[in-house]
Amino acid sequence: MRPMFPGQTYTRVLVDLYVTSIVEVFEKEQRLSTQVKMITVWFDSNVLWNSYKFCQILTIAAPRNLFWRPDIVIAESVKTEIGTVESSYVQLVFFGYVVLPEVLSLNTVCKLNLYRFPFDTQSCNITIQSVAYSNVDLKLETLHDTGVLTNSSKQSFQSQGEWELLNISTSKSKVFLMFGYADQLIYQITIKRRPLLHVINIILPVFFFLVLDVTSYFIDTDGADKLSFKVTLLLAISVLLLILNDTLPSTTYELPLIGIYCSAIFSLIGISILETILVNFLRAKGAKILSASAAVTGQDDGVSGPPVDQDRDQKEFQIAMWWIKVARITDMMFLILYLLTIVVFLSVLGKVWYIH
Amino acid sequence: MRPMFPGQTYTRVLVDLYVTSIVEVFEKEQRLSTQVKMITVWFDSNVLWNSYKFCQILTIAAPRNLFWRPDIVIAESVKTEIGTVESSYVQLVFFGYVVLPEVLSLNTVCKLNLYRFPFDTQSCNITIQSVAYSNVDLKLETLHDTGVLTNSSKQSFQSQGEWELLNISTSKSKVFLMFGYADQLIYQITIKRRPLLHVINIILPVFFFLVLDVTSYFIDTDGADKLSFKVTLLLAISVLLLILNDTLPSTTYELPLIGIYCSAIFSLIGISILETILVNFLRAKGAKILSASAAVTGQDDGVSGPPVDQDRDQKEFQIAMWWIKVARITDMMFLILYLLTIVVFLSVLGKVWYIH
Amino acid sequence: MRPMFPGQTYTRVLVDLYVTSIVEVFEKEQRLSTQVKMITVWFDSNVLWNSYKFCQILTIAAPRNLFWRPDIVIAESVKTEIGTVESSYVQLVFFGYVVLPEVLSLNTVCKLNLYRFPFDTQSCNITIQSVAYSNVDLKLETLHDTGVLTNSSKQSFQSQGEWELLNISTSKSKVFLMFGYADQLIYQITIKRRPLLHVINIILPVFFFLVLDVTSYFIDTDGADKLSFKVTLLLAISVLLLILNDTLPSTTYELPLIGIYCSAIFSLIGISILETILVNFLRAKGAKILSASAAVTGQDDGVSGPPVDQDRDQKEFQIAMWWIKVARITDMMFLILYLLTIVVFLSVLGKVWYIH
Amino acid sequence: MRPMFPGQTYTRVLVDLYVTSIVEVFEKEQRLSTQVKMITVWFDSNVLWNSYKFCQILTIAAPRNLFWRPDIVIAESVKTEIGTVESSYVQLVFFGYVVLPEVLSLNTVCKLNLYRFPFDTQSCNITIQSVAYSNVDLKLETLHDTGVLTNSSKQSFQSQGEWELLNISTSKSKVFLMFGYADQLIYQITIKRRPLLHVINIILPVFFFLVLDVTSYFIDTDGADKLSFKVTLLLAISVLLLILNDTLPSTTYELPLIGIYCSAIFSLIGISILETILVNFLRAKGAKILSASAAVTGQDDGVSGPPVDQDRDQKEFQIAMWWIKVARITDMMFLILYLLTIVVFLSVLGKVWYIH
Amino acid sequence: MRPMFPGQTYTRVLVDLYVTSIVEVFEKEQRLSTQVKMITVWFDSNVLWNSYKFCQILTIAAPRNLFWRPDIVIAESVKTEIGTVESSYVQLVFFGYVVLPEVLSLNTVCKLNLYRFPFDTQSCNITIQSVAYSNVDLKLETLHDTGVLTNSSKQSFQSQGEWELLNISTSKSKVFLMFGYADQLIYQITIKRRPLLHVINIILPVFFFLVLDVTSYFIDTDGADKLSFKVTLLLAISVLLLILNDTLPSTTYELPLIGIYCSAIFSLIGISILETILVNFLRAKGAKILSASAAVTGQDDGVSGPPVDQDRDQKEFQIAMWWIKVARITDMMFLILYLLTIVVFLSVLGKVWYIH
Repeated sequence: MRPMFPGQTYTRVLVDLYVTSIVEVFEKEQRLSTQVKMITVWFDSNVLWNSYKFCQILTIAAPRNLFWRPDIVIAESVKTEIGTVESSYVQLVFFGYVVLPEVLSLNTVCKLNLYRFPFDTQSCNITIQSVAYSNVDLKLETLHDTGVLTNSSKQSFQSQGEWELLNISTSKSKVFLMFGYADQLIYQITIKRRPLLHVINIILPVFFFLVLDVTSYFIDTDGADKLSFKVTLLLAISVLLLILNDTLPSTTYELPLIGIYCSAIFSLIGISILETILVNFLRAKGAKILSASAAVTGQDDGVSGPPVDQDRDQKEFQIAMWWIKVARITDMMFLILYLLTIVVFLSVLGKVWYIH
Repeated sequence: MRPMFPGQTYTRVLVDLYVTSIVEVFEKEQRLSTQVKMITVWFDSNVLWNSYKFCQILTIAAPRNLFWRPDIVIAESVKTEIGTVESSYVQLVFFGYVVLPEVLSLNTVCKLNLYRFPFDTQSCNITIQSVAYSNVDLKLETLHDTGVLTNSSKQSFQSQGEWELLNISTSKSKVFLMFGYADQLIYQITIKRRPLLHVINIILPVFFFLVLDVTSYFIDTDGADKLSFKVTLLLAISVLLLILNDTLPSTTYELPLIGIYCSAIFSLIGISILETILVNFLRAKGAKILSASAAVTGQDDGVSGPPVDQDRDQKEFQIAMWWIKVARITDMMFLILYLLTIVVFLSVLGKVWYIH
Repeated sequence: MRPMFPGQTYTRVLVDLYVTSIVEVFEKEQRLSTQVKMITVWFDSNVLWNSYKFCQILTIAAPRNLFWRPDIVIAESVKTEIGTVESSYVQLVFFGYVVLPEVLSLNTVCKLNLYRFPFDTQSCNITIQSVAYSNVDLKLETLHDTGVLTNSSKQSFQSQGEWELLNISTSKSKVFLMFGYADQLIYQITIKRRPLLHVINIILPVFFFLVLDVTSYFIDTDGADKLSFKVTLLLAISVLLLILNDTLPSTTYELPLIGIYCSAIFSLIGISILETILVNFLRAKGAKILSASAAVTGQDDGVSGPPVDQDRDQKEFQIAMWWIKVARITDMMFLILYLLTIVVFLSVLGKVWYIH
Repeated sequence: MRPMFPGQTYTRVLVDLYVTSIVEVFEKEQRLSTQVKMITVWFDSNVLWNSYKFCQILTIAAPRNLFWRPDIVIAESVKTEIGTVESSYVQLVFFGYVVLPEVLSLNTVCKLNLYRFPFDTQSCNITIQSVAYSNVDLKLETLHDTGVLTNSSKQSFQSQGEWELLNISTSKSKVFLMFGYADQLIYQITIKRRPLLHVINIILPVFFFLVLDVTSYFIDTDGADKLSFKVTLLLAISVLLLILNDTLPSTTYELPLIGIYCSAIFSLIGISILETILVNFLRAKGAKILSASAAVTGQDDGVSGPPVDQDRDQKEFQIAMWWIKVARITDMMFLILYLLTIVVFLSVLGKVWYIH
Repeated sequence: MRPMFPGQTYTRVLVDLYVTSIVEVFEKEQRLSTQVKMITVWFDSNVLWNSYKFCQILTIAAPRNLFWRPDIVIAESVKTEIGTVESSYVQLVFFGYVVLPEVLSLNTVCKLNLYRFPFDTQSCNITIQSVAYSNVDLKLETLHDTGVLTNSSKQSFQSQGEWELLNISTSKSKVFLMFGYADQLIYQITIKRRPLLHVINIILPVFFFLVLDVTSYFIDTDGADKLSFKVTLLLAISVLLLILNDTLPSTTYELPLIGIYCSAIFSLIGISILETILVNFLRAKGAKILSASAAVTGQDDGVSGPPVDQDRDQKEFQIAMWWIKVARITDMMFLILYLLTIVVFLSVLGKVWYIH
């Protein structure tokens, strides 16, 4: 049944896996949808013939169901579909090899680490193994080496989508079946996200809102307009949170940096609104005392008040001025602190995010 | 047909179920999509051989359709798909065991209680049973115990998505078939949501809007700016309701706490707007009387009016002041009540939500 | 071929249908996705055995393809899928019954009346019939009565989603096949929506915006702030229309009440903005005349003008006052009418919506 | 193999197609998803029996695979699925007819003309033909006439969704196969959209915003509030564009009228904002000259200036007044033009849209 | 087995592929969903008959599984589905040809270049090849030439959707199989997007916001209203970014021009806000000095101050005027630069976008 090389008790199965397209990466479901081309080759001593004798025939196509076939499956697969209408033939090569080319639509589980989204690089495994044969019976090996695979995959890579194929590497492993081990061929596919549109849609606008918030310190009219300006910025970030919510799943132990970025800037603008309210409150307190004292002075206008009254006036004026001064200093101090926080926050974030 | 141990009238079927990935949890449809690995083992006296005699062969792969196979189904399943291309072999073990490993994509119904979303922990059952065999004929048992299952599942858990696998526990049960009972193996999968992104996208921004609303009491300019500030906050929460609507289904007897949270804060800010309008109304009433009396006084400026007039003036001034005082006291009282309400509401909610 | 009771020319087929889960209701597509458990029982005289003679064996599992099987289909079905991996066995009972239990994922067409959304109760039919057998040959009956079905369904109802299962009732009907009638078993499933989240996400916020609009009449500063306040309310309702658009299909002869509710309140706030603009216009006209006359008076200040001039002044003052009075009365009248409209509208709507 | 009437070389196949539900219309993909019931009847001389001799048996159900079956396909189909679990029987009628009833879930391509959306009526074809038999061998005919089909379809029409079934008409056609023609039966399904919710969600709000924009001309305070009022209207329309984008595909040679409607009103409001800015600019220019001259007059207040100065003053006053007058006339003219444009635009659009 | 022409060792397979509908283009997943009609014709010497002898029969329909069939697949396919219920017949033509017509729902990978979206033209390949036969055994050729294909496809093109079919061209190629080459027939389908709705939904509104931003320079009231006007424009663009995010994937090496367009205008408006804040700051500085000096002059009003004081007054007045002048010049310069930038940017973009 199971074909072997003469003098061997095991069957060598050679596998080649080319990634022809990254169809989609589902961040929310932690899945990867790929189109791969898998070529499985094994030795069958029944298909040996002398090509010199038989009109130089090197290969023959033969119906698939006449031959034994290894039960190769993909361990991470959630759904494996034949990409095209299934061919019902295998290719036989004169020196005893059976070649089975397949185009598969794979839907595999993959640990996606979105910590550095959208500047992330993901590594997904596609593990090929036999379900029922232990490695005593069936030995899995790669047909071509990694360099060839990566090159061929890159060449036939048919997508200009969000992901760039960086590398395909292979390694061998073993998995415990009931009574014995089975060979595993692990193809590690490394892909890199092209971040430009996410940068333009989220990171840049949010950053711009932060810059606008900082410059709003120089709005020198009364505080109310400043407030409505700032609260509109907050509203605009809320709108952009809708995009973030569409893009990102609630995942991973660590919060994605883009989440920290958005919510930190949201909080910063929020805090700066609180500060504006505080400064206005202080200023208003000063202004109130001032106007009250002015009113008193105004009332006493005709009659020259006693010097004691003038002293009190002076004192009140000083208190008012003190309030206004406190407001100004608070404002100044906050601005410096605010700028410092922003610089430190952004530089640390930038380092972790991009350079790392 | 149905294989038995010699001297037994029933067939023992041992099942192991490993959860290799939580693919997705559909809150709206109350469904759970998982990738599981199910290993079914049963005794078949026809596959006994002496491994010492037969070249130490411990296991053989044999075509699946040559053997009897228990009709194990998953009771909660809405859709069960073979995860990979289906293998056509079973593994035979020399002491008479037939091993059938399967990777399944399950889509099971699950009672999801979203009351404590996004800090929720869900328990979903995967019930394995025979459809046609009663427990007189077919006895279901677990192959490994719960500890091993949980460990293996956690080890092979291939997802870093929204859900963390806490535990897998098994229990046995019976279900009534027409004339007899069938064994059931219930695997209870306990998973915990990772709430961080939901916190950042909904809970935090909404809380921030509440804080801004409270501090808006200290905006000391005339009421109009305060109003536009507050109504913008309301608008921003409406935008965030879009996210909530995307995330949460209209489910469960009790409203999810996050719904209560959002709509309570929405209402609180709404009420505080009502209060602001009221206070402004009172203040404006006072101011109107004041300016009217001032106008009268101004008109009578040149001529010294009669004392009666001055008295009326005084009275009107007092009424105006009274209105303004009422406005100030209302404002103050409301602020205290408002803060109290918020503190009580948030602490009760926090307790129920997180600590519980 | 077709099994019959001895002495009968027809075959009795007994069917039980349990609704184990409402997976999803597609309002837009007017479809219902359910998981049901269907147990089909029929008599086959070939499977009779004496259980006392054969070791008390009451039931046997036998391969499905060895037996005749009624061609029961679900008439409303758009897609019927076997929920689990299909079992290949039927259960035989000693007194001649063949039992075929199936778990089905149904996707059935259902007339959903969304008039009272989200306080709606829907009734969907699942009609079971034979495709090729007329009722001369095949008689369809229920196995258990409605009470048992409803109870069992409720017990095994595995979903806490948007829908609550109220009732399952059965009725018999006939359908015309080419030359004769076929029996139909109609299961009517009555389900009730749990409206809470929709209330919180749409109805409550929109109502709140209406309340805010009404109270905005007491904003006593100049009209501009009032206008920006009100137009922001309109904007907020536009945002909530996004949610409505996601939730509701454009269906039914009558517009859903929630659509009437939202668009009526939208229109009401719109009309109140128009009124505010009108009142402001009248008031501004008055103020202009006043200021113009004041300016004239101011110019003539030094010289005491002739009495004729004072008369004209008086007249103009009266006209101005008249304009302002008209504005005030219009405002007052509108407020009363507005409140009346709202009360009448909401009470009528509430009656139709909830109490009906 | 192919059954024929005695004395005929062709087989008559009669087909009936009932549309039982419009499941969904995909505007973006130009597809139609329907549930249809197709009854195919053909003559098979092997199934003739004398019902008087055989106990009045009129019809028999027989396994499907024992009989020849025409290869009827639906030409527009992108996906054809059996709606229910496939029945494995056909119905045989005593005078030699074989009846094959099928419930199909069709997914057909359909040219949707969205020009008059949401007041559109669509006509979709379902073309039935044989793939391999030419009309020399197989003649396709309708079983019932169009009136019966339409009535039956309307009766069994199980959906109250967005679409109303108006009419089903049939026509015969031919299609060229390799060497000969094949018969085609074309069922043209005419459906009408129920537009109410789209009216409420898009058309009405956008119209309301236009009305508010027009009335904003009577806002008589300084221009800034008017501007913020108008720009908020623009923002609200942007929000409603989100709904439009969700609903409508970028299709057809001609732009859908609803797109013209929305973008025209968007542009109109935009232009009216430009006009407001212009008028304010003119008015501000006038006011500046006025205040400058007033300041000069104020400075020269104590000393009576020379008559030349008064003349210049007068002239400047006139220039200022002229600016203000220009502003007023521009405003008035624009309002008239604006109203005219709106009336003409809406009446033309309304005619094309609804009455046409 | 494999049929050949007498005297030939290879089999000629003729293929025709008509694109009957572009069902959907998935920009995010870089996939194309089409409905195609594929007619495969090959010679089989066993099906030769003399039509003159056999009653002029030109074609016969015969069961599909009785004949050899080439294993033609589509190389780019992610999913190939039979569009209709699969016919089980092939058509035999008297001079030895076997005709296999198929309607396929293809889901193919396609390199979509979205650089010029929505004015883009895409070229997608559909490559037809044999999986197991080398070109020694099986030669692939087109049945009709490209002109006929394009015309027929355009004629039967059943969609009025987003895409217009421009052209279908064919070319021949070879692909390396294990030991030999296989023929490939490459159908290149060129389709053009109909951009109107995208223009109306994104490009036009964003452009309008830019125009409004430019004209806001002529808002001559104090800066605050201008600011709130401009920040509302920014908010409106953020809302439109939601549409952009729904429409466009994060793809391609180069950023799509529409992304550059939106984010450039977003940035321009942002920068113009920064400039407004700066100008206001300068103006406010001048105004402050002015008012301070006025206050001093006011205080010293009764007593005539010393000439030195008047000089200082003069100087301060000049400094204040200088600040205001700087503000005015900055504003003017910026406006010119701003307009220049916009004109250059838009003309370059327009050239690259549309004319290119």
